[in-house]
Amino acid sequence: MLKPLGDRVIIEVAKEEEKSVGGIVLASSAKEKPQTGTVIAVGEGRVLESGQKIPAAVKEGDQVMFEKYAGTEVKYEGNEYLIVSGKDIIAIVE
Amino acid sequence: MLKPLGDRVIIEVAKEEEKSVGGIVLASSAKEKPQTGTVIAVGEGRVLESGQKIPAAVKEGDQVMFEKYAGTEVKYEGNEYLIVSGKDIIAIVE
Amino acid sequence: MLKPLGDRVIIEVAKEEEKSVGGIVLASSAKEKPQTGTVIAVGEGRVLESGQKIPAAVKEGDQVMFEKYAGTEVKYEGNEYLIVSGKDIIAIVE
Amino acid sequence: MLKPLGDRVIIEVAKEEEKSVGGIVLASSAKEKPQTGTVIAVGEGRVLESGQKIPAAVKEGDQVMFEKYAGTEVKYEGNEYLIVSGKDIIAIVE
Amino acid sequence: MLKPLGDRVIIEVAKEEEKSVGGIVLASSAKEKPQTGTVIAVGEGRVLESGQKIPAAVKEGDQVMFEKYAGTEVKYEGNEYLIVSGKDIIAIVE
Amino acid sequence: MLKPLGDRVIIEVAKEEEKSVGGIVLASSAKEKPQTGTVIAVGEGRVLESGQKIPAAVKEGDQVMFEKYAGTEVKYEGNEYLIVSGKDIIAIVE
Amino acid sequence: MLKPLGDRVIIEVAKEEEKSVGGIVLASSAKEKPQTGTVIAVGEGRVLESGQKIPAAVKEGDQVMFEKYAGTEVKYEGNEYLIVSGKDIIAIVE
Repeated sequence: MLKPLGDRVIIEVAKEEEKSVGGIVLASSAKEKPQTGTVIAVGEGRVLESGQKIPAAVKEGDQVMFEKYAGTEVKYEGNEYLIVSGKDIIAIVE
Repeated sequence: MLKPLGDRVIIEVAKEEEKSVGGIVLASSAKEKPQTGTVIAVGEGRVLESGQKIPAAVKEGDQVMFEKYAGTEVKYEGNEYLIVSGKDIIAIVE
Repeated sequence: MLKPLGDRVIIEVAKEEEKSVGGIVLASSAKEKPQTGTVIAVGEGRVLESGQKIPAAVKEGDQVMFEKYAGTEVKYEGNEYLIVSGKDIIAIVE
Repeated sequence: MLKPLGDRVIIEVAKEEEKSVGGIVLASSAKEKPQTGTVIAVGEGRVLESGQKIPAAVKEGDQVMFEKYAGTEVKYEGNEYLIVSGKDIIAIVE
Repeated sequence: MLKPLGDRVIIEVAKEEEKSVGGIVLASSAKEKPQTGTVIAVGEGRVLESGQKIPAAVKEGDQVMFEKYAGTEVKYEGNEYLIVSGKDIIAIVE
Repeated sequence: MLKPLGDRVIIEVAKEEEKSVGGIVLASSAKEKPQTGTVIAVGEGRVLESGQKIPAAVKEGDQVMFEKYAGTEVKYEGNEYLIVSGKDIIAIVE
Repeated sequence: MLKPLGDRVIIEVAKEEEKSVGGIVLASSAKEKPQTGTVIAVGEGRVLESGQKIPAAVKEGDQVMFEKYAGTEVKYEGNEYLIVSGKDIIAIVE
């Protein structure tokens, strides 16, 4: 199991379908938008300078939108995940 | 439903009418001004280093002006929205 | 009505008279100085990291000097205003 | 009257005499040093993140040295002043 | 013994196997991913501006993932270690 | 008298002897090291964000080493001094 | 005696032996690693924004590793020392 540290969140990124016209793969315009994915694990939260711990605003299983280009790709047991900072998660898709 | 996180606010951007003269589309001079829109959803607010949570200064339905080029465009259920940080909202239009 | 947010202040900028000599418009040397204007509306003030709210140092009707190039131009009901951060207001002209 | 805001201080800058040799004006070497002037008015002081207000370290009438190139030049009722941040005042000349 | 200071952590970096095809060494694609290793020693933690000490989120023996290019390589008694800041450790591999 | 403000310290810089060989002045290699001098006056100290005032770590008459290139040169009553921030003083020479 | 100020630490840098092969001096590969040395004196520690003083994490006589290129070289009574900030000391060698 991967246990993210601090305010980090592990996300399984949703795959975007590529549209093809006559066999030519077209980059979806949606690719310039933020990506979406499913939260797999959350860290214990971030610590303020006052010492207070702020838990993550998302939880396991949440569908989320996050800033494109945020985070670090990791490979674990054959699967690929993205580990992003909680501040790079824009919204929960409910 | 899209639920913005932190001090983020989801805005439906007001469309600007383009003036055309004899079929030629003229870029409105107003386009260099801040944009306006309607607040669709607000996050729970930002957290100060002291741990205090500051709620958003705007609420659903507010007409707002926001800094041009601020925020991230998102597409959700066929509609386009802008998710901006509360600090990029300049004024409420009452 | 436009209601500025945070420590923002709406200013109606004073027009500078341009001197002309024999029909040639001369850029006033004063133009390189800070601009002056009248405060039209003030936001609720800025919030310190301690949570304390600091009200604006200016009020409606004040004549103020502000840093040139500060702020964002907005157009509202046919009039042009400047919305500046309170920290860019240099002095009150009494 | 000009009332400076925050930790700003209004200074009437002391004029430096230029030495001339045979009619040629020589830039004084002292010009590369900090400038001096007289404090005309002081703001209410700066506000710490803790909310505490720190009054200016100088008062009206003080002769002060300040960092060259600091501040903003203003013209008021025909006179020229410099408005500088309190942190750019180096020393009081007693 | 090496005793790391502050929020630093000493890591013995896991060696990555290189795949070779017909004798040609291929850089593993995994090399662009974060590195993994074993925690050898942890410092006393970081000190917040409030004076509170936050202990490290990892302990001796933990298998961790950390940001590639983070930290400082050290050689000690013939062995090579990496000393990284706690904030550069992404996740614990359990 | 010159009274430095905040955490500033006025220093009379020690002159370095230049070695000359056969009339040719050699730049001393020591010139690339920090400079030394005597503390002439100290300000009231710096103010923390908590409002607490931290007095200077040096006092009048102290021999000090300070970062080369730090501070502002001032001329006062025919003498030249350096006014440096307390944080640029490296050590007291006892 | 040299008394370092704030969180500074005076270090006597350990000399690295250079390997020579047939008279040609080879730069040791270890030179790209952090340097080691002996702590000669420590300052009173750093002051947090809360006013709390944090003493140095090292003491006189400690063998330490520190970031290469950190600190300021000083010469005192014929000896050369390095004065580094406490935050640039990576580890104590016990």
